[in-house]
Amino acid sequence: MANELAAYSELRARLKRVHVLGSVGGLLGWDEQVNLPPAAAAQRGEQMALVAELVHAEATAPALGAALAACEAAPAGALDEEASVVVAAARRDFDRATKLPAELVSEKARLSSEAYHAWAAARAARDFAAFAPYLEKHLALARREAELLGYGERPYDLAIDRHDPGLTAARIDTLFTELRAGLVPLVRRIDARAEAARARGEAPLALKGFDIAAQRELVRRVTERIGFDYGRGRLDVSLHPFCEGSGDDLRLTTRFDADNPLDALYSSIHEAGHGMYEQGLPREHAGTALAQAAGMAAHESQSRLWENQVARSRAFWRWLGPELRAAFPGPLAGVSEEQLHAAANAVEPGGMIRVDADEVHYNLHILLRFDLEKRLFAGALRVAELPAAWDALCEELFGRRPAHAGEGVLQDVHWSGGAFGYFPSYTLGNMMAAQLWAAARARLAGIEENFSRGEFGRLLGWLRAEVHARGRREDAFALTRRVTGEDLGAKALLAYLEERYG
Amino acid sequence: MANELAAYSELRARLKRVHVLGSVGGLLGWDEQVNLPPAAAAQRGEQMALVAELVHAEATAPALGAALAACEAAPAGALDEEASVVVAAARRDFDRATKLPAELVSEKARLSSEAYHAWAAARAARDFAAFAPYLEKHLALARREAELLGYGERPYDLAIDRHDPGLTAARIDTLFTELRAGLVPLVRRIDARAEAARARGEAPLALKGFDIAAQRELVRRVTERIGFDYGRGRLDVSLHPFCEGSGDDLRLTTRFDADNPLDALYSSIHEAGHGMYEQGLPREHAGTALAQAAGMAAHESQSRLWENQVARSRAFWRWLGPELRAAFPGPLAGVSEEQLHAAANAVEPGGMIRVDADEVHYNLHILLRFDLEKRLFAGALRVAELPAAWDALCEELFGRRPAHAGEGVLQDVHWSGGAFGYFPSYTLGNMMAAQLWAAARARLAGIEENFSRGEFGRLLGWLRAEVHARGRREDAFALTRRVTGEDLGAKALLAYLEERYG
Repeated sequence: MANELAAYSELRARLKRVHVLGSVGGLLGWDEQVNLPPAAAAQRGEQMALVAELVHAEATAPALGAALAACEAAPAGALDEEASVVVAAARRDFDRATKLPAELVSEKARLSSEAYHAWAAARAARDFAAFAPYLEKHLALARREAELLGYGERPYDLAIDRHDPGLTAARIDTLFTELRAGLVPLVRRIDARAEAARARGEAPLALKGFDIAAQRELVRRVTERIGFDYGRGRLDVSLHPFCEGSGDDLRLTTRFDADNPLDALYSSIHEAGHGMYEQGLPREHAGTALAQAAGMAAHESQSRLWENQVARSRAFWRWLGPELRAAFPGPLAGVSEEQLHAAANAVEPGGMIRVDADEVHYNLHILLRFDLEKRLFAGALRVAELPAAWDALCEELFGRRPAHAGEGVLQDVHWSGGAFGYFPSYTLGNMMAAQLWAAARARLAGIEENFSRGEFGRLLGWLRAEVHARGRREDAFALTRRVTGEDLGAKALLAYLEERYG
Repeated sequence: MANELAAYSELRARLKRVHVLGSVGGLLGWDEQVNLPPAAAAQRGEQMALVAELVHAEATAPALGAALAACEAAPAGALDEEASVVVAAARRDFDRATKLPAELVSEKARLSSEAYHAWAAARAARDFAAFAPYLEKHLALARREAELLGYGERPYDLAIDRHDPGLTAARIDTLFTELRAGLVPLVRRIDARAEAARARGEAPLALKGFDIAAQRELVRRVTERIGFDYGRGRLDVSLHPFCEGSGDDLRLTTRFDADNPLDALYSSIHEAGHGMYEQGLPREHAGTALAQAAGMAAHESQSRLWENQVARSRAFWRWLGPELRAAFPGPLAGVSEEQLHAAANAVEPGGMIRVDADEVHYNLHILLRFDLEKRLFAGALRVAELPAAWDALCEELFGRRPAHAGEGVLQDVHWSGGAFGYFPSYTLGNMMAAQLWAAARARLAGIEENFSRGEFGRLLGWLRAEVHARGRREDAFALTRRVTGEDLGAKALLAYLEERYG
């Protein structure tokens, strides 16, 4: 009988332990951002370091390795397709965990902690040189990691593969070259129009005085309505929005600003998209690849799809508009639905900050970072040359340069944690979202009319079946091809941006 | 040089690991009560079970045992007094942890989980027979534990010693006999007066319509004012108030009722008393006996002292009254200071529920439970006879019987978790609180005038020095004797109750 192998049960039990303990670490992280008393940072650091050490011990337990080897040695037919997925992914993760010496793991953790504070200070002082030594060290560690773990064509591939199994710099290069060719002229066109409007004195809508308690209630109602299950999750406040958790305990965070109600709304819908993906993974397989997301690009595709394709659409606003008006009759007196929808789709030419970027400009920020990371890893660019390279590329892509390092090369937190190879996932997620959305529109007739009535179950059901329920069986490429019938590419994203903003 | 022994450093590092991982388990428990999504109970159970298993592994680590043995074998003078305290307590804890087979630990955890649900259902149905089998099993486990770990005169002593090192049933017996002799006639007198007042038609003050947000703010202001450090803690809402955490991260919980503002206020002051004790333990020794509370009686002495001796006093109300009035001008219009103070010191004769009891009646509830636990452990009372014994003792102590098992033998959660020997700590804490308060009044001239001005630093400073900073160096007896110059006894508590309620 398939999967009745004792070693397979043991493997699953061992993987479950890694997962459960990892989820404890996740909760510590969530609590740190949401609840931690000001003076408790050091104490929380001790807790997180110890849990991380114990997670690593569980992930590299000899008993796990033995169960894995026994599964791999099992006769053909002893394990079915699902089990083979579990075993293959477990092998990949086990090798990664065991090949890295604990000393390197803790060196990276220590460096990240120091580098974070150095980065924050350097950004405030707009002084790249103060951060450069930390970046050098992180790059050296990443190269050592790549040597230890092995990589495809280039060390940068390992950094990418961590977040998106199966991806390489070469494949991203092809995709991003295609995207850039279409995106740069499109952005120029949109920017020119926006600037002309501004020159005519058309000011963006000012939204002011939105009660925080009412915002909180609205955000909760909207995210619940699109399908986030609050029986298995919560919504809290943190400095930067994020989504943390798994299975029956998914936690979204947002932040509220009385003078910017759309920020909490859209960041919450974005995080709810992540949360719904996690809630859709099959719980009975927790700890195995069957209950893990396909990668960060796939994860971003879910959050972006709900945030952008769904929640910025006219159809969605036909439902949301009256909801919003009922929640904020005062501040919205005299504001038309048309103005509100326009505010939700406002484009801001020349913005230099990625996290504040609209969806038209966002991908340019990613093209820039990918290009620089690639050159850094290849040794074609030295750390000292980074600020100049950043600014030059800004000029090429955005038509302007940042005023200083704080809104340029020092703006993102990622490098202070050694998180190289992560940026591309954002844009790959945008591409996937556009393709999934095109496929959904083609398959689910009248789906936009559903949105107009506040009905989102059909779309979520389709995503559950086509994406969520599949776990980590496929990489971003295979997933996109299976669901949409087309290869992952820039076409759908460009068409979507053209349709909505062109 | 004292304490420069490598084994002593190793011991402290090992104890720190046990403590840090234990604090992670504590946070999981806090989060379960405060934040957990409804469907996540099973998932949280998995996390807590795994962390508990790993805490046990750390607490029984051979490396810890080796370091401990090496410290004990060190030549005289190698370790100073502080280190000797650490080593002795570590030995006690290590032996306890290693002598219990993991199988028994997990059996008790499983039983407690089942018994909790059985208890909740039995209490709702007022059906003791449905809960009796679980209590039988818990008693059997407790006896096995006592056999494995050893005990003084009787197995019940072990259950007591767990919560209050150094205490025995015999010592408690002596103290409680003394207390009962004075308390029962005092309660009769107070009850008679209260009943006469009621017969004259004097109704207790009804407090209604107190805004929850304003209550929350007041509770926070009051607990901060008495000395709880919110830089190192927080206040949240849970079904039952509690205090969890250590060091720089102490978390108080309370619950709010618009029609009972004194409940949130006094339960918060109580929990803040626990929290201030923990905040006063010397952080640099975290994980060792030097930074642990002296026992549960000592812990309760701190919470009760602040809640009762301090916060129900006339002096305190001279400061609190105007604060309360400023926070709730509407609901308090027409209510006098006198009425408010009386409401905070209201006595309710005939109340059968411990957790709702006023401070006069509270100790009778404990005398009852101690007597029954003692007889159960001695085999002098069978589980089946417990309800009848409960009711008979109620008659003796309170002059009435509970109407049903739900307000009688089934009212407390403790036994469903096998937490025998815990109840006495509450009353011992009340005794200690009364003695500490008498000593504080004698040593700190004008201390009540401080309260009238909202100044609490002198009292807290004295408690910090005399109690908190001493950690787990002494048991409740030695601590009381050192600080007050008198042996732990019932006299001060009786005198205090006489003075305030007689």
